Amino acid sequence: MKKSQKVKVCFSPVLLDSYITEDENPVIVVIDIFRASTSICTAMNNGAKKIITVAGLEEAETLKEEGYTVVAERNAKRCDFADFGNSPFELNSKSVVDKELVFTTTNCTYAIEKAKEFSNQIVIGAFSNLNALVDDCVKSEKDIVLLCAGWKKRYCIEDTLFAGAFVQQMIKNKTEQSVLNDSTRTALELWNTHKKELPTYLSNTEHYQRLLSHNLQQDIEYCLQANSTEIIPNYDVKQNAFVPKL
Amino acid sequence: MKKSQKVKVCFSPVLLDSYITEDENPVIVVIDIFRASTSICTAMNNGAKKIITVAGLEEAETLKEEGYTVVAERNAKRCDFADFGNSPFELNSKSVVDKELVFTTTNCTYAIEKAKEFSNQIVIGAFSNLNALVDDCVKSEKDIVLLCAGWKKRYCIEDTLFAGAFVQQMIKNKTEQSVLNDSTRTALELWNTHKKELPTYLSNTEHYQRLLSHNLQQDIEYCLQANSTEIIPNYDVKQNAFVPKL
Repeated sequence: MKKSQKVKVCFSPVLLDSYITEDENPVIVVIDIFRASTSICTAMNNGAKKIITVAGLEEAETLKEEGYTVVAERNAKRCDFADFGNSPFELNSKSVVDKELVFTTTNCTYAIEKAKEFSNQIVIGAFSNLNALVDDCVKSEKDIVLLCAGWKKRYCIEDTLFAGAFVQQMIKNKTEQSVLNDSTRTALELWNTHKKELPTYLSNTEHYQRLLSHNLQQDIEYCLQANSTEIIPNYDVKQNAFVPKL
Repeated sequence: MKKSQKVKVCFSPVLLDSYITEDENPVIVVIDIFRASTSICTAMNNGAKKIITVAGLEEAETLKEEGYTVVAERNAKRCDFADFGNSPFELNSKSVVDKELVFTTTNCTYAIEKAKEFSNQIVIGAFSNLNALVDDCVKSEKDIVLLCAGWKKRYCIEDTLFAGAFVQQMIKNKTEQSVLNDSTRTALELWNTHKKELPTYLSNTEHYQRLLSHNLQQDIEYCLQANSTEIIPNYDVKQNAFVPKL
């Protein structure tokens, strides 16, 4: 009998060790809807051939000196030394095609480093690649951990909503789900309650407000658009970088 | 102008440092609805004069040898060496009146130890003392952190619901609330959506199912009853123990 595929939502990178036991090697989906996971999908969709994610600014600066094109953001702003900030609009074809990009952001790259501690199967999830990602994960038959990057280790509603959308889509694909754990249940409930009014519902949340204060309304709208690409940024252990999943 | 009183929900003891900045000394409400925070309130309501909480079993065993009455639970079961398990029904007047109890449980006492790292103002919250606790917190005019003990560091719905009930009650008391953070918003939403059907809503959640598998249905019902006491277990730094707040 085929083992049923488990899916668990983890609300913060700091909690990851409490959701994965030692003998598991689940697929970890890293989620940072506003904006890093969306930007990584966009850059790859626009032709970036490799994305090297680093958690620290120092490492990103060193790689910049070595000639890499660097995307670097802290607290919603582009870092001075970087070529680009974390806006998907900056990562257009002209900017990124055929490039190897170095990427560091406030939350997403930290979440990726935590994910590497627990699995060698890491993919990037955003509304833009939702359907393609769910299809791929369902086909894999592997257990899934949906890792919300959050904001500085804290719980974020927008990442939770995406996790809920992912779980709903898995259920729709008739993936058998055993009892859902509490975080997965909450994510699914928030998604199903608010999926038809995402911008309104999100308009009073913390990071939405933070982005608005930086006049990034356009980025917010972009990050909530679903299924514009089938690209899945996939962690390649040998290269220690993300490449498009074939 | 009086500073508005802030309230924040923290979904796991492991996340506490990301919700409290160094110069704050908020009131931390420790919440473990199923069952420890309810049991602590019950024991104190039934006359226990002091509750010494310890995170480790070894320390609890040593105190047992020194003559203390010990409440000790792991994974929903009473520890062999202990006088009582973590059921509020065991902690009746006959068992606890005038006693100094030592208390160790799977999640709550760990949450209390984490809270001590960040504040010297710690109280225990349960549905049984909800109204009294909110009144006291509102009167204090201090910032509040609602710390959900969760289950082995993971997010739990029942603790989140209590946090939502607390926030709703504060709002009802006309405490001015600035923008709610994301975790507080989610707790409040879950409470307001499900407050009229708590047992049904909770019946598929993780810890409810775990307690049911130990035939603890009666404990569950008891832990969801609101406002049966006005006792507030309050941390006394000098005694390193909880005593009834006067």
